[in-house]
Amino acid sequence: MPTPKYSISPSQPLANGVPDSHRARAIRGTLRYWLRAPADVKTHTSYLTFNTKKRQEIIDITDEVDKCRAEAGISEGFVLVSAMHISASVFVNDHESGLWQDILDWLENRIAPWSPDEYRHNSGTGEDNAAAHLRSLTIGHEVIVPVTKGRLDFGPWQRVFYGEWDGQRKKRVLLKAMGE
Amino acid sequence: MPTPKYSISPSQPLANGVPDSHRARAIRGTLRYWLRAPADVKTHTSYLTFNTKKRQEIIDITDEVDKCRAEAGISEGFVLVSAMHISASVFVNDHESGLWQDILDWLENRIAPWSPDEYRHNSGTGEDNAAAHLRSLTIGHEVIVPVTKGRLDFGPWQRVFYGEWDGQRKKRVLLKAMGE
Amino acid sequence: MPTPKYSISPSQPLANGVPDSHRARAIRGTLRYWLRAPADVKTHTSYLTFNTKKRQEIIDITDEVDKCRAEAGISEGFVLVSAMHISASVFVNDHESGLWQDILDWLENRIAPWSPDEYRHNSGTGEDNAAAHLRSLTIGHEVIVPVTKGRLDFGPWQRVFYGEWDGQRKKRVLLKAMGE
Repeated sequence: MPTPKYSISPSQPLANGVPDSHRARAIRGTLRYWLRAPADVKTHTSYLTFNTKKRQEIIDITDEVDKCRAEAGISEGFVLVSAMHISASVFVNDHESGLWQDILDWLENRIAPWSPDEYRHNSGTGEDNAAAHLRSLTIGHEVIVPVTKGRLDFGPWQRVFYGEWDGQRKKRVLLKAMGE
Repeated sequence: MPTPKYSISPSQPLANGVPDSHRARAIRGTLRYWLRAPADVKTHTSYLTFNTKKRQEIIDITDEVDKCRAEAGISEGFVLVSAMHISASVFVNDHESGLWQDILDWLENRIAPWSPDEYRHNSGTGEDNAAAHLRSLTIGHEVIVPVTKGRLDFGPWQRVFYGEWDGQRKKRVLLKAMGE
Repeated sequence: MPTPKYSISPSQPLANGVPDSHRARAIRGTLRYWLRAPADVKTHTSYLTFNTKKRQEIIDITDEVDKCRAEAGISEGFVLVSAMHISASVFVNDHESGLWQDILDWLENRIAPWSPDEYRHNSGTGEDNAAAHLRSLTIGHEVIVPVTKGRLDFGPWQRVFYGEWDGQRKKRVLLKAMGE
């Protein structure tokens, strides 16, 4: 079975599911190549799962974001990194353990103390995690990581983190790369 | 008037406004079909208008975001949801009325009390809403909602909200879907 | 040297670096034009550099964002505006100097006082800027500016700002336009 010189990329769906001969594919590939057809927009989606040992925890996920970029095969575009829960955050900051502890202390002492009795959310719903919701709102639940020339286009100290504000159970983060 | 077997999609603009015969369109459609031309990136923009009864209010707009996705006809991509005002927020959190009240109380008591006399913005500009600006900065004014396999790709409890921090007048939110 | 009637746009890379005659380019351009090939997704990336006189400063960068949109030549899409540092913010708010001072005071007095002795990040790392990190987390480090019909699609008072929380040294902001 000969390999056509220019083949349709596997990400190119067959329209209407019409079967496609090798010969037809080769001719089509040659024509598309010759026409310099514009690069298809590519998207790629993956998911991370966490089940933290501590109730609050900060986890560096930069390598997973870069893996999604590589799997998408994009050189220009972005990766959306979005927590799928309303008691967690995704943010960009510094890989420094002293700062991570500062963030946890700051959330507890200044931004939104855990104090379940102070919140309405915690009465009637069986929940005690209103503070985790407020922390998620303050820091945000998603970031867009730019991709330029095939790399995460970050400054010298930027890393991506998952912030777990109410863990010790299964939680997920979505990664979606989009670009060309 | 016969219908061509393969027609150009209506989202495909006619370049330079050159008029286009049915016959030419049919040939072109066949060729593009045969070449498996890459899916066009689609964008679709719509706007929501609010005029809240209360000065501060939280409104679930998830159904409107999903409507924008459907109108765009995208199966992979995202919907940008962005408040067009600097005294409002858009955020993702929980559809639970106790929590909504917690958020309003937290903004007033801990993040940015209304107290107009404490702010410079409120002297000289005729405005008394500096606190609404600071609340918008804290929670943010926009979110990116991922779209996967034709659905808003949310975790089990995620919903999109408009947070009005200085209402009782006409305010707008932009929805822009982009993808393929 | 004759100009071909329909030329490939310069943003169209030559696949595999194969050299391309004027004649071939003209035929290809005609065919692509005739096929109404879908609009290419365009991306354009530029960088801003700041070196503020004061350690904290708020700078209106809306005109630079609009310049990036224009250079990208997109009429539908967005511009990602993202600080490349973990002690700075990018945000959308009001061009009003009283409010800028309110924001600086609010960050110092309510959100994250500078007080270097209170933070772990400031011991052992030689840094005294933990507060700048927390301010960056609160306000966020990036925004997505929607582009519709060739314009930044903003409400009446919205402008884009760079918030420097630890300046007096070289810092950068990435601008990436994407769309069609």
